[in-house]
Amino acid sequence: MIDNLSSVLKGGRLAATRPDVVDFISSFEADRRIAFTTVLVNEAHVIALERSGVIERRAARKLLRALRTLESKRHLSGRRLEDVHVAIEEYVTRLTGREIGGLLHIGKSRNDQVATAVRMTLRNEILELSDLLLQFEFSLIQLGRRHVNTVFPGYTHLQPAQPISFGHYLVANCFSLLRDSERLIQAYARINKSPMGAGAIAGTSIPVNRSLVARLLGFDGLVEASLDAVGGRDFALEALGALALTANDLSRISSDLLFYSTGEVRLIELPDEFASTSSIMPQKKNADPLELLRAKAAKVAGMFSSAITIMHGLTSGYNLDYQEITPMLWQSVDEMNACLRILVALTPRLKVDEEAESRPYLKSTAATELANILVRAEQMPFRTAHHKVGGLVKSLISQGRGLQDLQGEDWKKVLGYVPSERTLRLISQTLDLKASLRSYRTAGSPNPTETRRLIALGSRRCREIQRANTKAQKRLEVSMRSLRTAASR
Amino acid sequence: MIDNLSSVLKGGRLAATRPDVVDFISSFEADRRIAFTTVLVNEAHVIALERSGVIERRAARKLLRALRTLESKRHLSGRRLEDVHVAIEEYVTRLTGREIGGLLHIGKSRNDQVATAVRMTLRNEILELSDLLLQFEFSLIQLGRRHVNTVFPGYTHLQPAQPISFGHYLVANCFSLLRDSERLIQAYARINKSPMGAGAIAGTSIPVNRSLVARLLGFDGLVEASLDAVGGRDFALEALGALALTANDLSRISSDLLFYSTGEVRLIELPDEFASTSSIMPQKKNADPLELLRAKAAKVAGMFSSAITIMHGLTSGYNLDYQEITPMLWQSVDEMNACLRILVALTPRLKVDEEAESRPYLKSTAATELANILVRAEQMPFRTAHHKVGGLVKSLISQGRGLQDLQGEDWKKVLGYVPSERTLRLISQTLDLKASLRSYRTAGSPNPTETRRLIALGSRRCREIQRANTKAQKRLEVSMRSLRTAASR
Amino acid sequence: MIDNLSSVLKGGRLAATRPDVVDFISSFEADRRIAFTTVLVNEAHVIALERSGVIERRAARKLLRALRTLESKRHLSGRRLEDVHVAIEEYVTRLTGREIGGLLHIGKSRNDQVATAVRMTLRNEILELSDLLLQFEFSLIQLGRRHVNTVFPGYTHLQPAQPISFGHYLVANCFSLLRDSERLIQAYARINKSPMGAGAIAGTSIPVNRSLVARLLGFDGLVEASLDAVGGRDFALEALGALALTANDLSRISSDLLFYSTGEVRLIELPDEFASTSSIMPQKKNADPLELLRAKAAKVAGMFSSAITIMHGLTSGYNLDYQEITPMLWQSVDEMNACLRILVALTPRLKVDEEAESRPYLKSTAATELANILVRAEQMPFRTAHHKVGGLVKSLISQGRGLQDLQGEDWKKVLGYVPSERTLRLISQTLDLKASLRSYRTAGSPNPTETRRLIALGSRRCREIQRANTKAQKRLEVSMRSLRTAASR
Amino acid sequence: MIDNLSSVLKGGRLAATRPDVVDFISSFEADRRIAFTTVLVNEAHVIALERSGVIERRAARKLLRALRTLESKRHLSGRRLEDVHVAIEEYVTRLTGREIGGLLHIGKSRNDQVATAVRMTLRNEILELSDLLLQFEFSLIQLGRRHVNTVFPGYTHLQPAQPISFGHYLVANCFSLLRDSERLIQAYARINKSPMGAGAIAGTSIPVNRSLVARLLGFDGLVEASLDAVGGRDFALEALGALALTANDLSRISSDLLFYSTGEVRLIELPDEFASTSSIMPQKKNADPLELLRAKAAKVAGMFSSAITIMHGLTSGYNLDYQEITPMLWQSVDEMNACLRILVALTPRLKVDEEAESRPYLKSTAATELANILVRAEQMPFRTAHHKVGGLVKSLISQGRGLQDLQGEDWKKVLGYVPSERTLRLISQTLDLKASLRSYRTAGSPNPTETRRLIALGSRRCREIQRANTKAQKRLEVSMRSLRTAASR
Repeated sequence: MIDNLSSVLKGGRLAATRPDVVDFISSFEADRRIAFTTVLVNEAHVIALERSGVIERRAARKLLRALRTLESKRHLSGRRLEDVHVAIEEYVTRLTGREIGGLLHIGKSRNDQVATAVRMTLRNEILELSDLLLQFEFSLIQLGRRHVNTVFPGYTHLQPAQPISFGHYLVANCFSLLRDSERLIQAYARINKSPMGAGAIAGTSIPVNRSLVARLLGFDGLVEASLDAVGGRDFALEALGALALTANDLSRISSDLLFYSTGEVRLIELPDEFASTSSIMPQKKNADPLELLRAKAAKVAGMFSSAITIMHGLTSGYNLDYQEITPMLWQSVDEMNACLRILVALTPRLKVDEEAESRPYLKSTAATELANILVRAEQMPFRTAHHKVGGLVKSLISQGRGLQDLQGEDWKKVLGYVPSERTLRLISQTLDLKASLRSYRTAGSPNPTETRRLIALGSRRCREIQRANTKAQKRLEVSMRSLRTAASR
Repeated sequence: MIDNLSSVLKGGRLAATRPDVVDFISSFEADRRIAFTTVLVNEAHVIALERSGVIERRAARKLLRALRTLESKRHLSGRRLEDVHVAIEEYVTRLTGREIGGLLHIGKSRNDQVATAVRMTLRNEILELSDLLLQFEFSLIQLGRRHVNTVFPGYTHLQPAQPISFGHYLVANCFSLLRDSERLIQAYARINKSPMGAGAIAGTSIPVNRSLVARLLGFDGLVEASLDAVGGRDFALEALGALALTANDLSRISSDLLFYSTGEVRLIELPDEFASTSSIMPQKKNADPLELLRAKAAKVAGMFSSAITIMHGLTSGYNLDYQEITPMLWQSVDEMNACLRILVALTPRLKVDEEAESRPYLKSTAATELANILVRAEQMPFRTAHHKVGGLVKSLISQGRGLQDLQGEDWKKVLGYVPSERTLRLISQTLDLKASLRSYRTAGSPNPTETRRLIALGSRRCREIQRANTKAQKRLEVSMRSLRTAASR
Repeated sequence: MIDNLSSVLKGGRLAATRPDVVDFISSFEADRRIAFTTVLVNEAHVIALERSGVIERRAARKLLRALRTLESKRHLSGRRLEDVHVAIEEYVTRLTGREIGGLLHIGKSRNDQVATAVRMTLRNEILELSDLLLQFEFSLIQLGRRHVNTVFPGYTHLQPAQPISFGHYLVANCFSLLRDSERLIQAYARINKSPMGAGAIAGTSIPVNRSLVARLLGFDGLVEASLDAVGGRDFALEALGALALTANDLSRISSDLLFYSTGEVRLIELPDEFASTSSIMPQKKNADPLELLRAKAAKVAGMFSSAITIMHGLTSGYNLDYQEITPMLWQSVDEMNACLRILVALTPRLKVDEEAESRPYLKSTAATELANILVRAEQMPFRTAHHKVGGLVKSLISQGRGLQDLQGEDWKKVLGYVPSERTLRLISQTLDLKASLRSYRTAGSPNPTETRRLIALGSRRCREIQRANTKAQKRLEVSMRSLRTAASR
Repeated sequence: MIDNLSSVLKGGRLAATRPDVVDFISSFEADRRIAFTTVLVNEAHVIALERSGVIERRAARKLLRALRTLESKRHLSGRRLEDVHVAIEEYVTRLTGREIGGLLHIGKSRNDQVATAVRMTLRNEILELSDLLLQFEFSLIQLGRRHVNTVFPGYTHLQPAQPISFGHYLVANCFSLLRDSERLIQAYARINKSPMGAGAIAGTSIPVNRSLVARLLGFDGLVEASLDAVGGRDFALEALGALALTANDLSRISSDLLFYSTGEVRLIELPDEFASTSSIMPQKKNADPLELLRAKAAKVAGMFSSAITIMHGLTSGYNLDYQEITPMLWQSVDEMNACLRILVALTPRLKVDEEAESRPYLKSTAATELANILVRAEQMPFRTAHHKVGGLVKSLISQGRGLQDLQGEDWKKVLGYVPSERTLRLISQTLDLKASLRSYRTAGSPNPTETRRLIALGSRRCREIQRANTKAQKRLEVSMRSLRTAASR
């Protein structure tokens, strides 16, 4: 009776490994995440071995039956085993006997097996995340639709700059997230290639049909060269990089919401159920989830940095250093997952101050358009107009007044004359910030017409990405069924 | 006469900025890199203003003529100017007078202008880099073709593991670089969208045809939402991320070459003209360029880390923090450019030890296949065979012998019997590492037939990417000509 | 006549290096920064060689005279030389002839020489930076002194939380910077050890008195083990780490000032001469230098990350990878230097709103102390008091009122009774935020008495650090003079 | 009966938080690590409240008894609680009733409490780690003592450069680690300051004797300014930075051992019990723990990067973002702890090839000293000697010979004459690498006499640090006892 396959694995060439060393190098805990996909990899491999006549039908059937029972019980007991690969082989050998169990590892290696299983788990996670990200994008669009006309200050340098609409704010952020969606999908295409059959590094003399294995496992092709298939982790770095960029976008949105909901700015009100109070300051309403979300974005960015440092300067071929990268994948996707769920739940509950346009100090955001009016209606060179309006604002501020308090006198002081009736009318229209939105004339501006167009465009892109996601998911399900069928024959 | 447009720009609202503050915030030095593209942006903008009737033909012509003279003299004098945008406006105003010069900035902002110019310069750099990367890939394939049968040890855990060919090594690395090429091209598509016309953040009431401007400047579409167009820098982060991954691959290749060319390993010989000697150790031959190349890869990775930290937690809209990211783009592309040039020059001059297969200690890399032979020819379960061969290696090592010294006796001790003639013949074939290569039977393995297939496949992919690059370059040239035509009308 | 010592240096063992390779590996540009200190190292080395009788007095004198002339002309011409070390040797050989010039490199190597020169330049930079940091700390204390009684909201979670004073804000930040000062000084002690005499890696058989060289160059001891002396760069990593922490503190202060000076918060007013306006939004007053300062902090942090990645996994001994770390030191100190200069100039010019205490919405920051009053005066358990006051704030907010509008009635509703006269008096005192400051009773609180104590304490610590700095500078000057004396004998 | 204090905490001002939001913001899992120290903080606080008469003796006794029972049961049940602070308060309230339990939080806040508990746990971890690091340093010295005369190649640029001894290698690495020890101790001094009593941000009007609390908790003083005490996390960043530098040193040592134990280099043999074999390559002996150790170093460096990004640009005061930094501390110390344990166990079991000096190709490392001999014995300028010896090496290599094969003829060809008997004798001594070690004449060189001095010096420094560690530990134990005494009165 075999007690510990792991030591058996060593018995030949090396003396037994110390228990503390096994604990140190064991990836068993982190491997839970790939336990299920590793079982599937073994199944597909057995099927391929049987098809090419390496092992007999009867043996294959026994191995597959044993593997099948492992699928459901997702928890293998570790008991000082190096990793899930050894645990599966031990389990199967226990069930099928040493003769048959000993066939399982023909023509494969842990190196190709782990790369394959990590890619399979990761692709599933990426698809799920991609779905969540889409939900968030849809929620921004949904909310945006209601606020096409809600005046909101557009900030530059953290200073109110020009009037935009809250709808524009939302859809602009949606467009930025759509690029994250694109990057995830493009990363997915490079992740979903099969390294299986690359063996330890050089393939094998055992005839294994790599394409068959890839098809059974739902891959869209092979990582062709065997050294490249087991020796690279750029698929993991790319995924971490795409997540870091997505997280960075989320950090901006959470910073925005934190700033917009401060006591002084109050443009946004967070629902109570997303806020906490202080343990000693009863008046506080803290946006805890948003602060954590921002911090988690930094954590995800740091994972990329860690992973790329791990890979820095490693030589070609498989290095065990790679093992430390895998848990970073799971941590990053989990953090992003949690963050997106919070945002998906929060967004529809955001309350925006729909009367912000009447706040006196926001009137100053009309200044750019005032200068434009002088340019168009009074044929003033832009720099001169800019200058004049700047002087006007300065003098108003020094008197504690705002643009809304402007009178003919003020203009006279600055221009040397009182502008025409028409100009004055245009000016007062501009100070009506809602009207000001409508005056924008460029594509993609916060003009409500344009915002509606952007919303339609954003929805369309979201749906395109959703279709691509769904298609990828379908393909995985189909291959899963064919693996099932093949395994049960 | 205007002496300093920069102070003019401030005169209205604010007192003059202190000279030391101007020095601190000035991006003038870094802006040299975008000086030419910024001039082009101004030209396209003027054309658009004229087409939509905002400025008159005559004024447009004067402005365009002034801008045209700027193209050639790439060095604007800075004299305490904030940035290239102000410098250009000042220059044009000097040439055309205040009336006409003052029209130049109508309907645009530094925010959209700088984003546009950075994207234009960056896309050119990416295309150039992409070309260099392709040259390197081609050089790997070229060399690989000559070494399809050159036995080379495949390493795992920095230990010789299995025989591969030097050709396989080269083409495997080429495939990994091809994914970098793909990522660069996909990043290019997101970089080459026009933010121009987004103004400071909210577009403008001046009718500017954004699509016309984009077309004249060679963009493949717009960054639609104005807030998104000026407020995001994910295009820069993505470029830095793609460069970091590429650099990471180069760091692996340089580590490989450094290791392969150490005094002990001597698999590769670097040409003298790529090595240095020591200032005091005359026997040394140091691969300086490769060490620097590896270090530069870390530097490029750090730039991504810096840039994502800069963006961390910034609120929406334009923030001046972005200004610090731009020089990181140029430094990263320049470093990568220099690294690739070195590799393109070095690769064809690499000398590999074509007799490595006869080194006794490399014979042990045949052990995996020995175990496979026992599995196939002696119907032994894989784990048992693995065990037996492991024991054999151990006992040989303890006697200072290698696998090449194996005799019938040794087998008897381990197996309990002397294997059949046929098995012994298979065994001795396996110890012929060149024959061993031919025994690999999986797709993508170092079997020479497969390596030739991979070389063909790699060449095809390289050419595809090359076509895409060329097409993008052509498109830029065409748009450049149409800008010229439009400007000279 | 020798034309190119660099090729001479190679002539023996290797063929000439390609010009493009020399350009790639050349550190000549970055070496300018260590040109002067490298000359000094050469002088001290020559003195030591002469003292131990390795070279004759006459030769030493000629070498020293030649080196002396190099000190002033800080610009050596590069002409395709690898580095400053070769340039100096070439220059000296030109002046003294091959016989004597050829003696210069006896018993030393570029490896120990570059490590020594980098440490010398770095220690000077650190001392200068440390001085600037102290100036900034002093300026915070100076301004703090004037604002011990100026009520200022203390924020948690970006929400106004409790009243503090602007003086407390300033001195608290000073204390945080003092820890940066400490870290720099402790890093200095590890930087200022001499590697000179460690040769390439193993010392030398030439009798060189390392302690003498160290003393002449102003070092406080040796990096003892030769392998450690040339093979490590932790002194550089530590310096970059200490700078990254300092920069991180500056990023907080700049974020604070940006937030406090937004249009909505207006607690701080930046002087015009530190702000810019927008190119199209005349009403804007952007705190450009603060945004850049924040971004530069991220850049400095990224340099640490780059440098540690460069060192990751390098083997012992000298590696050329180190060469890429040196320019990061200069960039980091230069950026920090520029940032500190701006802050030193800005701080005394900051204007704070001294009437902020009367802003209604800031009254809510008294809520914690209201709860404390109920605890003390009405013997209410803290949690109950916290609860009651929380309810009160909620109901006031829903009525558009603030704590300052509280009346007996409100208390009755919440407590079930109108509190005693004494309690009501305490309550109204608490709403007087200035009085509220005085009610704090813990060490280090914003109570003006405590703030004054902290200011005294902070000043003391600043002066202690200043003394340590001055002492270190003096020691360097003394050693410089003794080097001069020794060299001119 | 109170069911959920957490919701009670909110009841006043805010509606209940959603369960998913509580899960998202909960630090409960990560708080386990500070559960015990948080209980101690509460005890010290209650004692201080009683001493200053804020709560009565009887109440204090009850609270302390309840807290005491918590110490042992380290596992508080979480049940959707925000954090350990709330859990403790709830537990105590359950045991003592609402009247008395409600007193526990008077005069403190979670903000100062969490900062205090994190510092207490961290200081303990740092002391433990510092002890382990010392053990590793001692083990290097121990092994070094045995190898003062064992010739070992010193590498530069991964090329054998000059002969050193294995003892020198070990002690040089010990010196580098000693600087890590110093940095940890200096970080400890800044960590071990008490923020307790700083309240949420502004101290409190409740008279709490901060110095008493600090003394009872074993702190060496206060973080004085309240805003600084709760608002900073530089103590955490500094600890992470010091760990990153330590980890970086470990990454170098593991890279060294990996390289020295490759099949080609075989300078070091790892014990079997620290190595693994391959799952399919029976001849392999992989140094798995060393590869993981190297990767973990990159992970620790990445944590610093994450943490500094989290802090980047945050405004003053407490921000919940800090919460994400704490688990990084525990992960980093745990990883370092595990790495050091492996190294402490491994070092005494390393086997070095004591016959390496006789390897022909290592003879070339004598070349520098050959040049030195020509300088000294033949009065040749160093550059000329360097040149001649370089030429000699080149010609030998081309003939497949080594320096050991040198004959008078060879010298004649290079020098034009056969050197004197004396010179030839010196030359042949130099080629005896053991004698060559003895020829080094500089302080800190691999000369056995110097190595012995370095070993003595290293031991002394280790013991000094050990004394400092022990002293710190003793002080903590003493304060723990005084807390016990005070609590049981």
